[in-house]
Amino acid sequence: MKWDAWGLAEKSTTLSDGIKGLLQQALGVTTRQTPERAAEDVVLAASAVSEDQLAALAAIVGERFCSTAHYDRLLRSGGKSTIDLLRRRSTEQQNAPDVVVIPGTEAEIAEILDYCADNSIAVVPFSGGSSAVGGLDPVRDRFDAVLSLDMRRFDSLIDLDTDSGIATLGAGLPGPRVEERLGAHGFSLGHFPQSFMFSTIGGFAATRSSGQSSAGYGRFEDMVQGLRVVTPAGILDTGRAPASAAGPDLGELFVGSEGTLGVITQVRVRVHPVPESVVREGWRFPDFETGTAALRALRHEGAVPTVLRLSDEAETGVNLATHDKIGKEAVTGGCLAITTFEGTTDHTAQRVAQARAVLQSHGATSLGEGPGNNWERGRFDAPYLRDALLDAGALVETLETATTWSNLATLRAAVTKALTESLSGQGTPPLVLCHISHTYATGASLYFTIVCAQKEDPIDQWSKAKTAAGDAIIAAGGTITHHHAVGVDHRPWMRDEIGDLGVTVLRAVKNAVDPAGILNPGKLIP
Amino acid sequence: MKWDAWGLAEKSTTLSDGIKGLLQQALGVTTRQTPERAAEDVVLAASAVSEDQLAALAAIVGERFCSTAHYDRLLRSGGKSTIDLLRRRSTEQQNAPDVVVIPGTEAEIAEILDYCADNSIAVVPFSGGSSAVGGLDPVRDRFDAVLSLDMRRFDSLIDLDTDSGIATLGAGLPGPRVEERLGAHGFSLGHFPQSFMFSTIGGFAATRSSGQSSAGYGRFEDMVQGLRVVTPAGILDTGRAPASAAGPDLGELFVGSEGTLGVITQVRVRVHPVPESVVREGWRFPDFETGTAALRALRHEGAVPTVLRLSDEAETGVNLATHDKIGKEAVTGGCLAITTFEGTTDHTAQRVAQARAVLQSHGATSLGEGPGNNWERGRFDAPYLRDALLDAGALVETLETATTWSNLATLRAAVTKALTESLSGQGTPPLVLCHISHTYATGASLYFTIVCAQKEDPIDQWSKAKTAAGDAIIAAGGTITHHHAVGVDHRPWMRDEIGDLGVTVLRAVKNAVDPAGILNPGKLIP
Repeated sequence: MKWDAWGLAEKSTTLSDGIKGLLQQALGVTTRQTPERAAEDVVLAASAVSEDQLAALAAIVGERFCSTAHYDRLLRSGGKSTIDLLRRRSTEQQNAPDVVVIPGTEAEIAEILDYCADNSIAVVPFSGGSSAVGGLDPVRDRFDAVLSLDMRRFDSLIDLDTDSGIATLGAGLPGPRVEERLGAHGFSLGHFPQSFMFSTIGGFAATRSSGQSSAGYGRFEDMVQGLRVVTPAGILDTGRAPASAAGPDLGELFVGSEGTLGVITQVRVRVHPVPESVVREGWRFPDFETGTAALRALRHEGAVPTVLRLSDEAETGVNLATHDKIGKEAVTGGCLAITTFEGTTDHTAQRVAQARAVLQSHGATSLGEGPGNNWERGRFDAPYLRDALLDAGALVETLETATTWSNLATLRAAVTKALTESLSGQGTPPLVLCHISHTYATGASLYFTIVCAQKEDPIDQWSKAKTAAGDAIIAAGGTITHHHAVGVDHRPWMRDEIGDLGVTVLRAVKNAVDPAGILNPGKLIP
Repeated sequence: MKWDAWGLAEKSTTLSDGIKGLLQQALGVTTRQTPERAAEDVVLAASAVSEDQLAALAAIVGERFCSTAHYDRLLRSGGKSTIDLLRRRSTEQQNAPDVVVIPGTEAEIAEILDYCADNSIAVVPFSGGSSAVGGLDPVRDRFDAVLSLDMRRFDSLIDLDTDSGIATLGAGLPGPRVEERLGAHGFSLGHFPQSFMFSTIGGFAATRSSGQSSAGYGRFEDMVQGLRVVTPAGILDTGRAPASAAGPDLGELFVGSEGTLGVITQVRVRVHPVPESVVREGWRFPDFETGTAALRALRHEGAVPTVLRLSDEAETGVNLATHDKIGKEAVTGGCLAITTFEGTTDHTAQRVAQARAVLQSHGATSLGEGPGNNWERGRFDAPYLRDALLDAGALVETLETATTWSNLATLRAAVTKALTESLSGQGTPPLVLCHISHTYATGASLYFTIVCAQKEDPIDQWSKAKTAAGDAIIAAGGTITHHHAVGVDHRPWMRDEIGDLGVTVLRAVKNAVDPAGILNPGKLIP
């Protein structure tokens, strides 16, 4: 992972002069000179851990797994939101963890947590590094230093129960490695968020992640059968059975805990045989309302695809739905939807036929397999496009929410209005694109992409727009986040989301498992 | 509901002389004379609430909703486990709540909780009264009195969002009334536990209930979109969206809280259109192992019925699977399975065809629609049969667990062995029957029915067998309860189920929302 942009250097992209012209014409984007900086030129505060502390930590994990080196700290200085990337190119001194520690066992983690509690050191669990909400910010809070706890050594396929379809996975195992390891046994997890290439199992669990195949395989919490979590107060091991009535589901308390309640070390997940058959299809709807009604019908009549997405007119128009072709070859007019069906050959064919009947009776026109295949090829690449747009002087960011089917149009209009008014009011009228990428029996997600010209202080510019959007989401009855998690960025609305008593409950759990409060301060819990 | 047996007096049944003879021959059951007692002859301790307290409570809810009358207290003195029923016929003084209060608003509940916290009165939320695990026992613990908080006035369909398929229901609304009210709008909840006729929405949520159609519509927690809960520390309102990544799912903390964390007043649930089509079918498998493998294949290949059940050889043999015909007309030999498919006519037909193909390729022989229809007719009546068996001098009780597919045979053998050894060791060799009634991608439930001769002290006799079974479940890796909940009866194994840290977490939540500890003491949390 690049320290100042998304992903791998060899995959970075640039915009054509045509697109740049279009951006200038439509949004007033003018190329700014934000020079790339060499990592060694970034100014970090000196590490706040003492020689003695470093020695003590090295004694726990071994010297080679304990570092205060500039690049090691820089690489773990935050996530990959637009604000993270803009901050990272700043010439001012930047925040970074004071020390990076890479434990190899649960016992080592427990020792590190003890040591940090006794020595006023905050602990930020780190794995993929792709947080979009400030979940990895090295917030010092009331502590003297921040330790980045890198989980990369928890990278094994610990067990695969093929009869039950359950894999036990190390929390640091990257998404692509999971598919490789399971694939060797004929199994798949089927969890593909956009961050997939730089994701980990522990990150999926800690952030309550949802992947592009959520219609078929569920959200990550649906896949979780059990967790092992090391907390300062001991180890929790949840999930004795596929289902239980033995009181509250404590696993659901640690899924989505974002490193604030403990360090997830293992996750037991439901897996399925690698699908025999995959059938992709693109669909054109005359408008978003018609398309939304068709998606709802598909959920209610039970012929649910593995992947189910619908772009609005604007997103379809700029062809952002197939990320590598932004602005080129506008395919359809109207709204583009994509379905993918996976499973046994027979079962897939039957479901495809059922779904086609439902979609066509709700106004869909088939576009064949092309759009689905295009989407599939580019589906992890949008963040590279964001980097190119940022480099070209555009401000680009995404945000997401979810609500019931009956409230979806109201919520979409409210968020679009808030973003448009905020950015237009700042002199940079935006393009606001929207799609549905996750559907449920009772509702769906809304994912917004916002593009406008960068102002002098783009961090301040975006922060204002984000605040307006967050307030609008709360006012219109949406959730503050459907799959990006809370982190630092959504924390201001957390009390609106769960209420005063919800905050009291989370705080009580936090105090019970992390009495010193060292775990990921400043995130999630208001 | 009868005070000393299940259900309605007019539905009670007796055993034929033939069956009695069979029970005597096979299990040594001899008719005991446990005379029915008139309710007014039962000895209850005098109510421990003072005149002043009674007046204060009546001032909150109104005099007619506040009672210390003998029959009101007796009716709420516990649930309907076999031990409950045996105790209720005892001539000794019995436990009962000291006062019954029937609030009409959340504000009244909050006032009652305040008053009870200040006056050392424990509060046992009560609705359907069908607990099988002592969840309603009037445990006094360190308090001076026990108040039964009857939720029957929270009985409205508060809202029905037909676009989203979400109903907002009062917690005291009985299961049958839910189906009536929703049915008037063309919708159904589809939650049918065996206790259905005497169940409530609040009870489903408080006990993490699972119904007979769980394969199709999910467990109750899967249906829950949100809850309102009145606690001594305030009101919690969970679930802003169909899915969210805004931290831990706090709803999952209150689903299954069994009245120990708060009083559930409203539940928002996913509902579906009343099915156009219902197709039932019975199947014969040569043995339980083959049948289990077929059920697993059905889950894994995705053609999942709405109802999916499999009885073992013993249960099939005595025809307990169709409860009204115990011992008569042994249908099949081998093992009887039942499938029900519900939905739109087309979708049902397609799924039936898919499932038939899978089942037949795994050794199933169709028995036509008869066994499914028989099961459907008698599916809520097993508790009446239990009453008849108890009256005839048999000891009969059920217990349940769940585990992964790979561990299912081991767990079943371990529980059967523990029950058989314990009861045989007491001189009363039992008949142990087993079925699978709830299936998941990764595993299934096991439901045991145990019948043997009653000894002099059947409560002590069953307690020993239950302890042996609970220990065996823990040792063999099952959950202590799949859908009966914890209550008093499973609490001894709760620490085994969730671990020391799990108990710490539950206690912390309890202390935060119920600092005086008045809510349902002695249940759930060790």
